[in-house]
Amino acid sequence: MSLLITGIGELTTHDPGLGVLTGAAVVVDGDRIAWVGPMGGAPDADERLDVGGAAVIPGFVDSHAHLVFAGDRAAEFAARMNGEPYTGGGIRTTVAATRAASDEELLAAAGRLVAEARRQGTTTIEIKSGYGLSVAQEARSLRIARQLTEETTFLGAHVVPAEYRDDPDGYVALVGGPMLAAAAPHARWIDVFCDRGAFDGDQTREILTAGAKAGLGLRVHANQLAPGPGVRLAVELGAASADHCTHLGDADVAALAGSDTVATLLPGAEFSTRSPYPDARRLLDAGVTVALATDCNPGSSYTSSMPFCLALAVREMRMTPAEALWAATAGGARALRRDDVGVLRPGARADLAVLDAPSFLHLAYRPGVPLISTVLHNGVPR
Amino acid sequence: MSLLITGIGELTTHDPGLGVLTGAAVVVDGDRIAWVGPMGGAPDADERLDVGGAAVIPGFVDSHAHLVFAGDRAAEFAARMNGEPYTGGGIRTTVAATRAASDEELLAAAGRLVAEARRQGTTTIEIKSGYGLSVAQEARSLRIARQLTEETTFLGAHVVPAEYRDDPDGYVALVGGPMLAAAAPHARWIDVFCDRGAFDGDQTREILTAGAKAGLGLRVHANQLAPGPGVRLAVELGAASADHCTHLGDADVAALAGSDTVATLLPGAEFSTRSPYPDARRLLDAGVTVALATDCNPGSSYTSSMPFCLALAVREMRMTPAEALWAATAGGARALRRDDVGVLRPGARADLAVLDAPSFLHLAYRPGVPLISTVLHNGVPR
Ligand SMILES: [Zn+2]
Ligand SMILES: [Zn+2]
Repeated sequence: MSLLITGIGELTTHDPGLGVLTGAAVVVDGDRIAWVGPMGGAPDADERLDVGGAAVIPGFVDSHAHLVFAGDRAAEFAARMNGEPYTGGGIRTTVAATRAASDEELLAAAGRLVAEARRQGTTTIEIKSGYGLSVAQEARSLRIARQLTEETTFLGAHVVPAEYRDDPDGYVALVGGPMLAAAAPHARWIDVFCDRGAFDGDQTREILTAGAKAGLGLRVHANQLAPGPGVRLAVELGAASADHCTHLGDADVAALAGSDTVATLLPGAEFSTRSPYPDARRLLDAGVTVALATDCNPGSSYTSSMPFCLALAVREMRMTPAEALWAATAGGARALRRDDVGVLRPGARADLAVLDAPSFLHLAYRPGVPLISTVLHNGVPR
Repeated sequence: MSLLITGIGELTTHDPGLGVLTGAAVVVDGDRIAWVGPMGGAPDADERLDVGGAAVIPGFVDSHAHLVFAGDRAAEFAARMNGEPYTGGGIRTTVAATRAASDEELLAAAGRLVAEARRQGTTTIEIKSGYGLSVAQEARSLRIARQLTEETTFLGAHVVPAEYRDDPDGYVALVGGPMLAAAAPHARWIDVFCDRGAFDGDQTREILTAGAKAGLGLRVHANQLAPGPGVRLAVELGAASADHCTHLGDADVAALAGSDTVATLLPGAEFSTRSPYPDARRLLDAGVTVALATDCNPGSSYTSSMPFCLALAVREMRMTPAEALWAATAGGARALRRDDVGVLRPGARADLAVLDAPSFLHLAYRPGVPLISTVLHNGVPR
């Protein structure tokens, strides 16, 4: 089944040869883009969708989300907004609730968030484990995540659980040993929260090295809360992405700039923890590849909205609207080492969003307004 | 026709005697609330809506919006985000486009924004003129606004139009004379942009005094861009609201605290112009009544989203989530001198929003996520 999408007022392709087209059309064949070009030259198709001058963009690629959990932490959020400092301790609240929930409850809750993100234009989403923190619970979280996305990430090293409080190195050995063995069949990636109060450089290296040996790609939660070794380790070990990048030194920026490691910025976390934003301009000006993602999680960034993160990136991190859109689509694809999403060109996945606006600029110009009117995912309108 | 809304997990009434109820129900009769109380005690009704544990809040009261205009200024926004300073000149672009548009085009465009706001939970919206700036054009804008809301505001004193550049006092005389006479039959309120580069204290006083004589209530755009006489004039003349309040001295705060004039904060404008936010805590701590509104307009705040403004108020202006919700509902009602909206108690208008969330806290906790599932306006679900 083929579909001609016509009447596209502004089409952002992110293909260097195609650029931004006005008066454009796209032909979808099955789950792939078959043709992109000016409206007048479009080939025939089985069906036709006229979007009446709307802007069309690649579907958002949210490369960093924590969706397998139970409960919420609204009261903790309200307390923090009333002036109490954020501590990592809140994660353990979610761990307890997640462990107590049934498979069905966890799948339904994560599925609701995936659907909510889809309505906001997200067509590729990464999902991490990290609220199970035992061999069986982490494997279960990843089995559930796998039902919702191909981009699953084993994050046993999210926080040291209470039962290992006095033996963190024992927990590191568990994560890199039996837990990894149980998780690997359900995961594409492994991630470590390398930061103050979480895992240090040696622990991170041990776990990531074991993950790479098990065939997983690498990602790192790096330099969110304080300066540290996370970003440089990510680059040294060839991680696809170093995520957060809030506290960077010159050596960190230089390491990223000379690497294939994407700096994934998560401004929803700074918004919801009232923290200073990462310096996106410094990274972009140094030639670093930047992605934007939601960090959707119940503790520090409970948003599933890529448009919101894009608006924050423009307002707070001085990215241009075009840079922010690229980072939220093609940038996320780079952070997942994918070349079939985040771009609209023949052969790419038919993942796109039709906006209730004449230009992608409106995603930043009209903050908070739900502007996603139609989403195509794998060629199917949702 | 009566409707029983039951299964309300959390009901925020803003009625001092009712407070926040859990396990609550509401009965709507026609366009009014007939009953509010615990689920078990609800009287019978013709129809029934079970919201399954969701939170219910009063509909938002957006007391400051500029919706009668043509065109957009996305390119100007993008330029500003790329580092160019904001100047008032942009308003004149919108004036030219608005004057050139037909009545039907203006009504359709404003109607789309009202509908967009409604989907985001806004059930009362104020609409200002101010892009016509001639006798005929301002009257036309208000006739169009009146088709969409009772809360219409004559803002001929938005900016001095190009044709009066060399005779601003002549324009002030026009606004307070023939333009007011043509506008008053279609307006409830009169407003003046009293600020640096707009209208000074004497001009503002002249226009507002004339407006009051014509039977209109008073509102003032005050102290947005610089300190000035706007807020104190608003209080002195008994205005319902002083809007923006970004640059205040101690005398301004004291004047507001001792008055019935509401301080209406518009954080969407600071977001979209990358300006410092007003100090909401200083106002609240001084006992000033604070409202939140969108300032929806194509130049400095093109958002229709009250939930977005509420999340900004918590993040950027250190309002608590409960203070922000009150300001966005009951506060807006005070700013419009209404006691029948912004509150859920017997006799009030049946204007409410059902959230896709168990608590109103999620409006700040889940920024950017469209959380409004059902809106009742005048008792009718939309
Ligand atoms: Zn994370
Ligand atoms: Zn305004």
